[in-house]
Amino acid sequence: MGKTMSEKILSAKSGLDLKAGDIAWVSVDKAMLDDILGPRVQIAEHLPKLSTGIKNVDNVVVISDHYTPPATVKQAEIVKFTRDWSKEYGIQNYYEFKGPCHQVMAEEGHVVPGTVVLGTDSHTCMGGALGAFASGVGSTEMLGIISQGKTWLKVPETILVEWAGSLPQYVMAKDMVLHTIKHIGHAGATYKAIEFIGDAIDALSVDQRMAITNMAVEMGAKVGLMRVDEKVEMYLQDKGIFSYEAFYSDPDATYCQVLRFDASSLSPQVACPHEVDNVHDVRAIKDKAIDQFYLGSCTGGRYSDLEIAANIVKGKKIAKGVRFLVSPASQSIWEKASQSGVLGTLAKSGATILAPTCGVCVGLHSGLLAAKERCLSTSNRNFIGRMGSTEAEIYLASPATVAASALKGIIADPCDIKE
Amino acid sequence: MGKTMSEKILSAKSGLDLKAGDIAWVSVDKAMLDDILGPRVQIAEHLPKLSTGIKNVDNVVVISDHYTPPATVKQAEIVKFTRDWSKEYGIQNYYEFKGPCHQVMAEEGHVVPGTVVLGTDSHTCMGGALGAFASGVGSTEMLGIISQGKTWLKVPETILVEWAGSLPQYVMAKDMVLHTIKHIGHAGATYKAIEFIGDAIDALSVDQRMAITNMAVEMGAKVGLMRVDEKVEMYLQDKGIFSYEAFYSDPDATYCQVLRFDASSLSPQVACPHEVDNVHDVRAIKDKAIDQFYLGSCTGGRYSDLEIAANIVKGKKIAKGVRFLVSPASQSIWEKASQSGVLGTLAKSGATILAPTCGVCVGLHSGLLAAKERCLSTSNRNFIGRMGSTEAEIYLASPATVAASALKGIIADPCDIKE
Repeated sequence: MGKTMSEKILSAKSGLDLKAGDIAWVSVDKAMLDDILGPRVQIAEHLPKLSTGIKNVDNVVVISDHYTPPATVKQAEIVKFTRDWSKEYGIQNYYEFKGPCHQVMAEEGHVVPGTVVLGTDSHTCMGGALGAFASGVGSTEMLGIISQGKTWLKVPETILVEWAGSLPQYVMAKDMVLHTIKHIGHAGATYKAIEFIGDAIDALSVDQRMAITNMAVEMGAKVGLMRVDEKVEMYLQDKGIFSYEAFYSDPDATYCQVLRFDASSLSPQVACPHEVDNVHDVRAIKDKAIDQFYLGSCTGGRYSDLEIAANIVKGKKIAKGVRFLVSPASQSIWEKASQSGVLGTLAKSGATILAPTCGVCVGLHSGLLAAKERCLSTSNRNFIGRMGSTEAEIYLASPATVAASALKGIIADPCDIKE
Repeated sequence: MGKTMSEKILSAKSGLDLKAGDIAWVSVDKAMLDDILGPRVQIAEHLPKLSTGIKNVDNVVVISDHYTPPATVKQAEIVKFTRDWSKEYGIQNYYEFKGPCHQVMAEEGHVVPGTVVLGTDSHTCMGGALGAFASGVGSTEMLGIISQGKTWLKVPETILVEWAGSLPQYVMAKDMVLHTIKHIGHAGATYKAIEFIGDAIDALSVDQRMAITNMAVEMGAKVGLMRVDEKVEMYLQDKGIFSYEAFYSDPDATYCQVLRFDASSLSPQVACPHEVDNVHDVRAIKDKAIDQFYLGSCTGGRYSDLEIAANIVKGKKIAKGVRFLVSPASQSIWEKASQSGVLGTLAKSGATILAPTCGVCVGLHSGLLAAKERCLSTSNRNFIGRMGSTEAEIYLASPATVAASALKGIIADPCDIKE
């Protein structure tokens, strides 16, 4: 009987023949700790009590991203603590001020097909775009992982989501995942794997695919997985990664649910307050006045996101009285977009270019909302109070929708753009 | 008997023949309110109780700069309040997310020779580089100013500071002002004007001159003044300003003190914790380990500052384990430095490029210090707790010194750079 990607990866990592529902110990290839839920939560306190220490320090990656650049003394102390702790344990893979952890993990070659990547951040599932079994874990579980080098996992059932057809211009991967979430619901994939396949997925760049797997957890999923194809191979080769074992679901694998969507008929989507699955067509709710536009985060701040936004605003100005904040998803994306003129184009339209950071998306610094303000954001969560005041509203959309809307000051359909 | 620049400007603005020590009502040409000490402090509350309203709304400029981008809900609420208040009173000259107010004031043409410019920020005196009587005032005084269009001032005595000679390579205006402060002391010019003259001043660009007048208040001065020359004329013409009356001190004007320095023999200076006048030659205290380097602010974030720093770090990497934060002093400087590749060069060396903001300098967000950390900064104050923890240390230096030091991770003399 055929196996899914999840079943195959976890079987390989456990040395057992596993099926969905089985529980097994699996070795962990990379353990990622961020600043907000990393060493400072349980781990630094309790690790010295364990005789093991850190099992394999080369498998541990620590990334200060939520609190950089620090906005309070407390945030600065946490970053310093995280930095000092990493140094104390001889962790070479320490990064800070480089942008959201998931993007840094992928860029720095820590996410490899067929491996198990666990991190103290729920959007770790983004790594599934590279064919890794990548998932978020709690801090205490992470303590076990770094001390043992392994963890136990239940093999998830898999939902197969097929996107056929080809996307219209200005409709993006973000629209695909918002539409998927609308159908599955914010808890519809709890502890399941979601495997994304189909022509419309294959046609996406690796960058764009990451916007989809990133939000698998917004349906409650354990992982969001995609096949390793030539584009992924090229992406990895660019990082010097040539050796890995990619796993593919068998044609007769068992899925607990199969959903099929047509990309050709998809229009821009927006998730309205205060749930990620409160998704509507942009054209159904457009003309809603917006105070702040946010282009950035590990969901919507990659180069192709900034590029399409720059193409939309080029030679134009954002609406009077609104603000347009842009945070590239990593230092290297910042540099590439600076070099190519993409950041310059965005700035010329009126955008404020922030450093790469998690701060805006998670409401820690760099652009919080006041009461009664509305934000249209490329990020991944629109929960009450997520980006500032509990009386603010967050709408989630694609980079194209955010850029087109910033020009008008209201939620606007990027497909209405006159070239 | 001859008059100083201050005496002439205030005489013209009062319609009286004033000398130092006289008190008179003078008309105010531009009243600048920032977010931190503007409308929300006394002004919004008490203005409605006055029958006058705002005397001349075109003379009022409001700039949200300290709390942008907002790092807390409270900061976001203050920016919203400042924005809404400006709209309510029909203030067209409202700016936000554009960078520190003093730079925005100069760039936007609000600082004109021979005018009186008062603002709710102590470094308003920067405007003296353009020949304006520019000074900081308290919020309650600002309430009087915007409701009356005038205020009373005591005409200050003037200290004449002459900088002869020419600066060695990599020695900058910031070194000149730090050296001046060393001699005058942090309270040595209290309620006095300081007039800066001499070949070394004339040789500076207008940008660089602003680093000097900006810090006049660090000696307690009411204003820091410079002559309007061809460079200033060009600067103003670039902003569409052709009509103004510049005032020049008479040869027989009376000065309460005259200081003469030789730029040719000046070496890079550093103000050590925790006083701005605790100034030493860099070579006397170099090799001090630094955690954070800050290139930015209304003192050290102008284009020429970023440019010299970029030239120093070009093709090199900052020291391992340190951070190098760069915040251009305005949106337009950001754009120019992006376009020219200066920001790209800085980023490639390892710098994090922040949005234009007051946040870092004043310890409100975007890069605070933890306890036991040291920062070498181009900004204007090194008081205890200014940039974060009260257990942190701040050293002030020029952009060249900050850049050269970031490469080594210690306070280093830029003059030691091998090309």
